[in-house]
Amino acid sequence: MTLIVTGSIGIDTISTPSGERREGVMGGSCAYFAAAASFHCPVRIVAVAGDDLPPSFLKTFTHFGIDTRGLEIRKGEKTFRWGGKYLGNMDQRETLFTELNVLGGKPAAIPAAYQDSKYVFLANAPPAVQRAMLDNFPGRTLAVADTMNLWIETAKDDLLALLKEVDGLVLNYDEAEQLTGKTNAVAAAKHILEFGPRFVVVKKGEHGCILVHRDGIAALPAYPAENVVDPTGAGDTFAGGMMGYLAGNKLEDPAAFPDVLKALAHGTVMASFTIEAFSLERLEELTKEELAARFAEFAAMLRLA
Amino acid sequence: MTLIVTGSIGIDTISTPSGERREGVMGGSCAYFAAAASFHCPVRIVAVAGDDLPPSFLKTFTHFGIDTRGLEIRKGEKTFRWGGKYLGNMDQRETLFTELNVLGGKPAAIPAAYQDSKYVFLANAPPAVQRAMLDNFPGRTLAVADTMNLWIETAKDDLLALLKEVDGLVLNYDEAEQLTGKTNAVAAAKHILEFGPRFVVVKKGEHGCILVHRDGIAALPAYPAENVVDPTGAGDTFAGGMMGYLAGNKLEDPAAFPDVLKALAHGTVMASFTIEAFSLERLEELTKEELAARFAEFAAMLRLA
Repeated sequence: MTLIVTGSIGIDTISTPSGERREGVMGGSCAYFAAAASFHCPVRIVAVAGDDLPPSFLKTFTHFGIDTRGLEIRKGEKTFRWGGKYLGNMDQRETLFTELNVLGGKPAAIPAAYQDSKYVFLANAPPAVQRAMLDNFPGRTLAVADTMNLWIETAKDDLLALLKEVDGLVLNYDEAEQLTGKTNAVAAAKHILEFGPRFVVVKKGEHGCILVHRDGIAALPAYPAENVVDPTGAGDTFAGGMMGYLAGNKLEDPAAFPDVLKALAHGTVMASFTIEAFSLERLEELTKEELAARFAEFAAMLRLA
Repeated sequence: MTLIVTGSIGIDTISTPSGERREGVMGGSCAYFAAAASFHCPVRIVAVAGDDLPPSFLKTFTHFGIDTRGLEIRKGEKTFRWGGKYLGNMDQRETLFTELNVLGGKPAAIPAAYQDSKYVFLANAPPAVQRAMLDNFPGRTLAVADTMNLWIETAKDDLLALLKEVDGLVLNYDEAEQLTGKTNAVAAAKHILEFGPRFVVVKKGEHGCILVHRDGIAALPAYPAENVVDPTGAGDTFAGGMMGYLAGNKLEDPAAFPDVLKALAHGTVMASFTIEAFSLERLEELTKEELAARFAEFAAMLRLA
């Protein structure tokens, strides 16, 4: 089934503790998510960019077979730009600059041809915008949202309204704590279930993730990666691998606990490739065979009995 | 097979963020380890205490069927005492006091009857002491050591000498980084393998553990616990569950990668009970059936394919 994602396209500048640096590379939640999900199912994107968008980015979308009819390139405007610097063992990062540019304007329009989309992922955006997006897909099968600390601080009511409409929420550990005031990941996620979703995924970066679902609780480790080059986009490709799996397989109930858990494992494995190179470089080289082999390795590592 | 552990017996005072407090409860690496391991195999302890050791502690050892012939109670001396306070979500703790007392004197003697022990765990102690202990068991099958940041700082050469003699090392993430200068858990543990052991276990508390073995690399999550009352002893009972499994099952090579990994899962499940109450309170109530049921649940949670 077709998966739709709404989110950002960015032109990134990234520095890592090794001293390496990339300027003007492809980034943004929508780009990372869509590339990852494309390994599992057809993907449509809804995003805005300026006319400074490098043509190579469009080639990258084509490479992944992504449907870009919902990518709106606005004349005379500039694409969202972000600069970040990783520190220490890459678990900390400093934002060097954020230029919202076109992202500060009105949200992308959703093409009429997209309105039959059944699987919807709302990457991080103001929750009121996410909710308005969601209204375009009344016949949807599954909707999952990401969020961030800024909206928990400044738009909590909008976020709570959104949580009544989505099946799942993906967020970081500290965001889960911030949203609920609970200092335990499981307790925080259980509290979020009360706001409406059927499941909550707490992302812990190199420490894996926790799934709290109405029907069960589980935890997964991250893939034990030795060579981390650039963690940018790990969370978005994790979500892309997860949603891609749920949309790409004929599941009777794509929000069922065992399927979401398996989807998180697919997301984990996808993210483990993303971090092996800057930007989307590793995913551009990734083959379905490599992906399947690492998934098998990850599953075998966790087969305890 | 019989497992021997050398380590501390302590009288602990513990405060938690909920405002709860326990004074004068049983603690120490040896106590926690032995209690945990006793669910899997017979356990012998080698430790020193003062004659202020509460008689209830001896009853607790009896409850777990622990062989205490190697517990030396020194007249006129005081038992090791430790006080700690947990903060935030329990991932930080402040040491309120450490009174070495009898631990500052000479190490415990090893009873002649213990010298046939095949499985040896050296809980945290000065590495030179750990090495001298190990010399008592020339016919051992498996030896694993724990260590801490203090010895990495003050006795690194002794620690490196110890690492040539043991099959495995268990340590915390920050200690692995400190010992190697590497800021990635896998890279740090791989570096430690070069010092001698066949495997290194990096403990990450609520984030699980990483196993780096000459024959493979794996990661496990912690059991997703909601109700964490007192994390004291989690690491020692993790090691106890691990070593107990390796000693208690007739394994051809108890340091083989798949067996150590399975042992870590048993350690993980054991630690998940420890933290549900203060001191050894939860392990004292724990039944083999509860333990087996949670292990089955943990294994099922990780069965992805």
